[in-house]
Amino acid sequence: MNLQPVTFTPIGVVHCDFGEPSDPKTMRNALSTIEIDEKYQEGLKGIEKFRHLFVIYHIHRALGYDLLVHPMGDESIPKRGLFATRTPRRPNPIGLTVVEVLNVEGNKITVTGLDALDASPVLDIKPYEEHFDSPTGVEAEKDPNYRPREG
Amino acid sequence: MNLQPVTFTPIGVVHCDFGEPSDPKTMRNALSTIEIDEKYQEGLKGIEKFRHLFVIYHIHRALGYDLLVHPMGDESIPKRGLFATRTPRRPNPIGLTVVEVLNVEGNKITVTGLDALDASPVLDIKPYEEHFDSPTGVEAEKDPNYRPREG
Repeated sequence: MNLQPVTFTPIGVVHCDFGEPSDPKTMRNALSTIEIDEKYQEGLKGIEKFRHLFVIYHIHRALGYDLLVHPMGDESIPKRGLFATRTPRRPNPIGLTVVEVLNVEGNKITVTGLDALDASPVLDIKPYEEHFDSPTGVEAEKDPNYRPREG
Repeated sequence: MNLQPVTFTPIGVVHCDFGEPSDPKTMRNALSTIEIDEKYQEGLKGIEKFRHLFVIYHIHRALGYDLLVHPMGDESIPKRGLFATRTPRRPNPIGLTVVEVLNVEGNKITVTGLDALDASPVLDIKPYEEHFDSPTGVEAEKDPNYRPREG
């Protein structure tokens, strides 16, 4: 297995009121501004036409991980493998959130729905596309004549 | 803006029949196996209960990027900013795909729906959770009494 390290340089940063972890629902209901490095500003052209985006960011404050965790930290739920949960404490602390776009101005995108802490480095932004990103879309894209091979 | 580089070590690798880019629909209809580094195998516990997962991977063959691109390479569609498209040629070539889980055995997950080339390094795997990952879920999570501030 080729597991060579990969290095990314953030394309921008999150600004919001949450410097410390808070109730996720409160965070998602608040406004966040994603400030993109000015050198990429032209790369945002047309992004205002999408209502929802994926934001991929570095969970820069997460430290370490456990292989087995209680989902949502709830000890009444049996432990599961970390990859079967959304815990921020992961081998590669990469955050992924669907956000709603409220405004785009220059190199700043104002959104709700983001659960990232203030100053989180943003690695990528992608338009959310129903046909590609929802399970129903994934199913609909399937070739009805396609049959998985054994194996 | 703090744009310090971030380094990740892949947690696994994609095995599939596509060593070169092919028709995306053909790729997504084929089977792929995600082989996870054995040291993380316990972290997969319970993942078989999810029908859909997000796979976050390094688009390791992508080279460079253009700020403005024709969506899906279709020259009949006017150019857009790269962040308003799913082009693999991005400042940080991070792939994001919703896949359907067919089988989990040891450290290997067999899926359909993945459009990654053979040998793509996998950075993270997350369960797809409707309430969190779909726009309707994002909307439903909203506090009905919440009003965005001006700003």
